Amino acid sequence: MMEIDLPDVKAELEAAFAVYETALITNDVAVLDELFLDAPTTIRYGGGENLYGYAEIAAFRSGRPSAGLARSIERTVITTYGRDFGTASTLFRRDTAPGKIGRQMQTWIRTPVGWRVVAAHVSVIPDPEVAA
Amino acid sequence: MMEIDLPDVKAELEAAFAVYETALITNDVAVLDELFLDAPTTIRYGGGENLYGYAEIAAFRSGRPSAGLARSIERTVITTYGRDFGTASTLFRRDTAPGKIGRQMQTWIRTPVGWRVVAAHVSVIPDPEVAA
Repeated sequence: MMEIDLPDVKAELEAAFAVYETALITNDVAVLDELFLDAPTTIRYGGGENLYGYAEIAAFRSGRPSAGLARSIERTVITTYGRDFGTASTLFRRDTAPGKIGRQMQTWIRTPVGWRVVAAHVSVIPDPEVAA
Repeated sequence: MMEIDLPDVKAELEAAFAVYETALITNDVAVLDELFLDAPTTIRYGGGENLYGYAEIAAFRSGRPSAGLARSIERTVITTYGRDFGTASTLFRRDTAPGKIGRQMQTWIRTPVGWRVVAAHVSVIPDPEVAA
């Protein structure tokens, strides 16, 4: 089986994830667009929308309000499989959504021009730690 | 870059996804457990819970009510990257949740004993097609 979490590969994907997170909270649409694979197979299930293909994702980004994107992340886990694949999962909170917890999961692949997201899913639920 | 959707690889993952779907709606916990990679790195964000590691996922499965799991799926997209990695994304609906649409996204890897899910995220939102 492919090796999990080879240190140099994991470090690469952690760096890519950090670039993405900064772009997200600063609404750097050019970087967000760049980090998703430009392919019809790329999918993003967002907080309130289901986007199939890079074109739909880019259109959504360009029309998104840029306010209120700040968030804190926690329980972030980045895992690589072999040298060319990985996943990034994190929980997040926003001050504007108390009692809620966000979940973001991404699948990344290595390309000749760097790591790219090929699938992403973002959702927000009542915080089960609070509800319990 | 690794080849996307090599036909034989895609067919393999489609078959694995079909087995998973049948196990899900019949609540075949043994098969559901088998199809997730038994590793501490495996993550499942569910409809109302955030599960880190295979042990938490298996515990959730075993305690899950088995009623009301029937669903219809739509816009299912299975994509493979190279020979050992792929994603499966689908929308779903349940008769018990009118006006809602579910989203399920999984990342799969090839192992010596078959394809296994290493990351999964399930969420349900108001159907944007209805809201629009």
